Amino acid sequence: MTIKKIDHLAIVVADLEKALQVYQDGFGLTLHHVSEESAEQVKVAYLPMPEGQGEIELIQPTTPDSGVAKFLSKRGEGLHHICLEVDNLTTSIQEMTAHGLEVLGAIRTNQRGDQYVFIHPKSAHGVLVELYERA
Amino acid sequence: MTIKKIDHLAIVVADLEKALQVYQDGFGLTLHHVSEESAEQVKVAYLPMPEGQGEIELIQPTTPDSGVAKFLSKRGEGLHHICLEVDNLTTSIQEMTAHGLEVLGAIRTNQRGDQYVFIHPKSAHGVLVELYERA
Repeated sequence: MTIKKIDHLAIVVADLEKALQVYQDGFGLTLHHVSEESAEQVKVAYLPMPEGQGEIELIQPTTPDSGVAKFLSKRGEGLHHICLEVDNLTTSIQEMTAHGLEVLGAIRTNQRGDQYVFIHPKSAHGVLVELYERA
Repeated sequence: MTIKKIDHLAIVVADLEKALQVYQDGFGLTLHHVSEESAEQVKVAYLPMPEGQGEIELIQPTTPDSGVAKFLSKRGEGLHHICLEVDNLTTSIQEMTAHGLEVLGAIRTNQRGDQYVFIHPKSAHGVLVELYERA
């Protein structure tokens, strides 16, 4: 098992358009695209760094009941999770759970076919960690 | 002004030794070194990704009065800030403040001579952002 890189940071926001003004115009990041991720009930703006050096994702809940919506109403806008790319998701989960890290639910698959899973923040010193294996 | 990369993510923890067990043994990250950063009143463990793909920093307050200590007692362990590397800190600050981002205090210099400054989370949708220019 190897962690390859910080794939992205996800920031939960109440208003994607307003947040894009700050992260595009203010920070000078480039918007790649916006898409709806129906599985997570969020709209996501993807702002990659140059040369594949990670990405910032701004996420806005599209329903009031999702995990992201509850996070926003409870904690306000801010960092939601970090995503680490691994070479092999199955062996990573085996080794991490053997060391006490707690996996949240089953492995999921996004629209591109990449697989991902979340680690419970209680087992990772308060950080919601997504593990991701590129398809 | 250009943001070059996500330089690091900082995670505030109560007990650096315990957190290192999780991030080294559990996640399989490699500890580069631990050092005291007296200016910020914290002890920092540096866990770089392979091939310069960003870094995770675990930070533990060394005094009860620092900003990091107050964050920990108020919000608990978790993500503290993200650090973005810029090509030029002075022009970045000028352009960002012109777009409404609020700088927290003066530019500071670390032990290696790198310069950095923080952006107020209220102006950045809840995220404490460090801007950093390599010496």
